Order: sequence, then C-alpha cells, then structure tokens
Amino acid sequence: MRTRPDETATPDGGAATTPLRPGRGRRPAAQVREAVLVAAGDLLFERGIGAVTFDKVASRSGASKMTLYRWWPSPGALALEAYSTRVRPTLTFADTGDIARDLTAQLTAFIHLLTDDGGGTVVGQLVGAAQSDQDLAQAFTAAYIKPRRQLAVERLTVAVQAGQIRDDVDLEVIVDQLWGACYHRLLLPALPLTPEFGRALVENVLRGVAPAQR
Amino acid sequence: MRTRPDETATPDGGAATTPLRPGRGRRPAAQVREAVLVAAGDLLFERGIGAVTFDKVASRSGASKMTLYRWWPSPGALALEAYSTRVRPTLTFADTGDIARDLTAQLTAFIHLLTDDGGGTVVGQLVGAAQSDQDLAQAFTAAYIKPRRQLAVERLTVAVQAGQIRDDVDLEVIVDQLWGACYHRLLLPALPLTPEFGRALVENVLRGVAPAQR
Repeated sequence: MRTRPDETATPDGGAATTPLRPGRGRRPAAQVREAVLVAAGDLLFERGIGAVTFDKVASRSGASKMTLYRWWPSPGALALEAYSTRVRPTLTFADTGDIARDLTAQLTAFIHLLTDDGGGTVVGQLVGAAQSDQDLAQAFTAAYIKPRRQLAVERLTVAVQAGQIRDDVDLEVIVDQLWGACYHRLLLPALPLTPEFGRALVENVLRGVAPAQR
Repeated sequence: MRTRPDETATPDGGAATTPLRPGRGRRPAAQVREAVLVAAGDLLFERGIGAVTFDKVASRSGASKMTLYRWWPSPGALALEAYSTRVRPTLTFADTGDIARDLTAQLTAFIHLLTDDGGGTVVGQLVGAAQSDQDLAQAFTAAYIKPRRQLAVERLTVAVQAGQIRDDVDLEVIVDQLWGACYHRLLLPALPLTPEFGRALVENVLRGVAPAQR
C-alpha cells in the first residue's frame, strides 16, 4: 500500500460522514485507505467504472469526500488503484522451477479473471477510458502496466538463468505474446478466451524461445 | 465496397444538400458512398472519432444527412467503416513463398500505421469506444476484426501447406501472438512499437511453430 506524507494528518470526517462507523471517531489513514479501495473495488466490479464516483465511494467506505479528493486526482485513478489492489493476489507468479507450469498457472488465473465475475468488463472499461483520458492513461501505465510487466520479466529472467529460455531472447516481447494475446481476445473480441488458449500461447512461446539443446 | 439492395434507389439529396457539387444533380449511390467514406476517414484521421458526426460528414462529402442516417446506424459505425476502408490497401498480405518475410512486411506496415500520422490514436479511440458501445463493438467484430483475422489465417494456411508451419498448430493463436502483441503495446502502452519489435514477434512465433525437420 502506498503511503503519502500527509496520511497520518488526514481527518477522516466526523460521525456525519462515516455512516458505517457511527460514533467511533477517526480511523488510522491506512485503514481508511483500505476501506476506500475495497468500496471502490466493489462498486467497480458490481456496477462498472461509471459507478466509481467520489460521492458513492465516500458513502460506502465511510471516508470523507475531502479525503478522496486529497488522495486521488480523479475517480478514474481511484478505480484503477482499486482494480490493481483487488487483482494483485490473483495474479501472483509462482516459482516451482517449471516455467511452463508457472506461466500456464498464471495465465489461467488471468483468463479466469477476464472471463468470470465481470472482470473482463472492468478491464475493458479501464483500458477503454484510458484511450481518451491522458491522466488515466499515465496512471495506468505507471501504476499497473509497468509493474505487472516487471513481475513477468522477473519470473522469465529466472527461467533464463535456469536454462529454460535462451539468453538472447527479449523477455519483454514474450510478455506481449502471452498477456497481450489475452488482452487482444478481450478487447478486440472474435474468439473465446479459454484455458486451452492460455496453454497454446505458452506452448508456442516456449518452443520458440527454448535453447537449442532441449 | 459493400453494396446494399437500396443503394441504386437512394436519393442523394438535391442541390441544397450537396454544396460541394452545386447544380450537378444526383450522383450514383456507389460514388456517394465512396465520397462519404473518404470524408469520414479524413475527419477521423485529422480530428479524431469525436469529429465524425453525420453533420460534418454530410457537409464534407456533399451527401445528405438523410442518406447517412439510412446507410449507417450510427456515426461510430460510419467511422469504423471509414477506417476499415482506408487501411485495407496498407494491410494486404503478400505471398512471396517466404512466410517470415511476408509476415514481417505486413506487421511492419501495421506498426507504421499505428505509429505514423495519428493512426494509433484513431485505433485507440475506436477500440476504446467499442468497450462501452455494444452496437459499435458488434460492428467492429463483424466488419473488421473477423475479416482481418481471416486474411491472416489464409496466409498462414498457405505456409502450413508449404511445410513452413506444423499442421497441428492453431493458426488463430498465432494471430493473437503477432497482431495482438502489437495492439497490446498500443492500448496498454509501456514500451515502443517498433519495426524491430515486429521482427522479434515473427521470429519467436515462427521458431515455435516450425516443423521439427527445419
């Protein structure tokens, strides 16, 4: 969770603006932040990006609107961080030593995220909104896209060190050929996003980047 | 160019609605259609999807607004067809017998389209708008995404027949790993879309799907 210099000094509103915690006074900033992100994530997945307004999130989380205005530049930025926070546990990279198994497991989790419980709609809305909102686009790249790519490249780097991927391969290209291929089926839909698709992606890529001696 | 049953019977408005061709009377429907698509394409590439309104396109093309309303369900659908028509000559698939060369040439042209002359902005706007517009999304899939995938699969099928790609490979997956990877760098930007990237995509994919005897 990000910390900001002014967090501890942030008033969390009185009883009038914290309907979920009547009479319990101020909460620590980190706790408020978590409640806000949970509330924004709930609104995002239940009702879409248009429902993530400072008004609605304040009402659901018990935080004051002033707090939200101070911590997030826009409702879009808040929606983005709520999404990012919510999906992080789902999109972890295992390291069992078997790169094919680990990539397949992560991609399968990603595909489930995009096809179950409205996750694909949320991602489509976020990416779609970023195409015409420069601020959201920059936040998306800095706070989500680059960190996610970095995690993938770290796992792929271990596979290079283990001799499972050639050391002359651009690992960033692999990222586009695995996760980019999934985003392609989501955002420019023509064929289904299935676990079998994820397995085929991994197989094609790993055959293509395997060392000659395999 | 698509033909429709009512095209030849469609009135193209009188002199009052065709300011670019005063006093010259009606034009054949196919010619009007072409003028409309050129005007819509110009507006789209010069000023973005928001500039493609029936008003502006009618004014630029000399077609009547009534004609536009009759032929296209929405300005978004018109923008989509204008885009599709404009990029078709750029995105052809050569068949020199060398699949690596032909895929690289096509991907290079696609990458230039996305990086030169505002093409990437246009594509981002179209894909972005489709995420929250069901009608546009359906038109996009039917009129652009599926036909483009089909052209790629046809070229890849020739490569399978020529023994350059294994016959147990799902060619649709290759489409996502080449063009989907490019859309990924456009729509979720973190790294540049370059001709070198296109070459790396083709190399990874073709190594992965090559027959064992190569």
